[in-house]
Amino acid sequence: MITLYEQATSGNCYKVRLVLTHTGRAFRRVEVSARDGSTRTQEFLARNPIGKVPTVEFDDGRPLGESNAIMLHFAEGTALLPADAYDRAKVYEWLFFEQYSHEPMIAVRRALFLYEERRHLATPERLAQLMEGGNKALSVMEGRLAAAHWLAGNAFSIADIALYAYTHTAEEGGYDLSSFPAVQAWLARVAKVPGHVPLEA
Amino acid sequence: MITLYEQATSGNCYKVRLVLTHTGRAFRRVEVSARDGSTRTQEFLARNPIGKVPTVEFDDGRPLGESNAIMLHFAEGTALLPADAYDRAKVYEWLFFEQYSHEPMIAVRRALFLYEERRHLATPERLAQLMEGGNKALSVMEGRLAAAHWLAGNAFSIADIALYAYTHTAEEGGYDLSSFPAVQAWLARVAKVPGHVPLEA
Repeated sequence: MITLYEQATSGNCYKVRLVLTHTGRAFRRVEVSARDGSTRTQEFLARNPIGKVPTVEFDDGRPLGESNAIMLHFAEGTALLPADAYDRAKVYEWLFFEQYSHEPMIAVRRALFLYEERRHLATPERLAQLMEGGNKALSVMEGRLAAAHWLAGNAFSIADIALYAYTHTAEEGGYDLSSFPAVQAWLARVAKVPGHVPLEA
Repeated sequence: MITLYEQATSGNCYKVRLVLTHTGRAFRRVEVSARDGSTRTQEFLARNPIGKVPTVEFDDGRPLGESNAIMLHFAEGTALLPADAYDRAKVYEWLFFEQYSHEPMIAVRRALFLYEERRHLATPERLAQLMEGGNKALSVMEGRLAAAHWLAGNAFSIADIALYAYTHTAEEGGYDLSSFPAVQAWLARVAKVPGHVPLEA
């Protein structure tokens, strides 16, 4: 059985739970976290030298890290990853957008409020910078979703899962989603896809 | 013919030139940059709403952004992207590692020295933070490359291209590669792959 090493409150880990659930795979969950040092043990670093969750371990013991890499692997051959070459490339584009321009703003700002040990990093300058960058990312999503139901191609894909994970918790980071009505409507659509499960805190 | 919108000194744009060259595709280059505002025109934002290079335009006019997404697209079906599912997943893992944990340190620190308009951002705290994060990323690469010739699987792939792009300019950002001998040996191997072209400044 697949083992998912995760921190349950992490949106990056939630992505992996969603893709495993949507593709009907059995998995067991092991809670590890930078917060208690359990991602810094020699045993964990052998699985993932950067010490990050999510990390999965396959039946044969081989590990894989990076949430969006894990999603691409499990989505291969399913409806969550388009067969059309251009639509597929657009999925890739949204996945890299998510990790470079969205998560480092929207997930990071949420973490400054959510995790007590990070609160000293929440300076007014940092909060303002993250607000500006996050709103820019949300604007890019709004532009697409005002004209289309899904982020890449014509169907729900791992691009939607990747962006849903932290967009649906953006208000915990202080973002105001009422300025992004197409994003709000899309969040509701994603939550209605059969097989959807909530983020368990 | 494929059009590559690029800023020639950018390692992210260099990745795309390398993959197009290695896969034998003809392309024309158009220089655009945030530095002169040409990535902020309505015409450019219609291609890429986040206003970033590289962006490619296919023969039919459809655009694609994000360097690593462009590489995945053009590498499909070639030796630059492994057929084995696990090796392929490890390519994905390195590509996301590059965009989250490597480029935001090593490319960003280089840019603080290279581009005059960014020099005011080069505070001692920021430089120290980028040095620490970049050295951590280089250590992860060193761990792999001390035990293997290439980053993913047993062959040169787009994982190597992605990490080469900014690692080979790391010293311009003040990093000392002499502490990473396996990385240095790998840089020399990548530069000897037939079809390799240098970063043209």
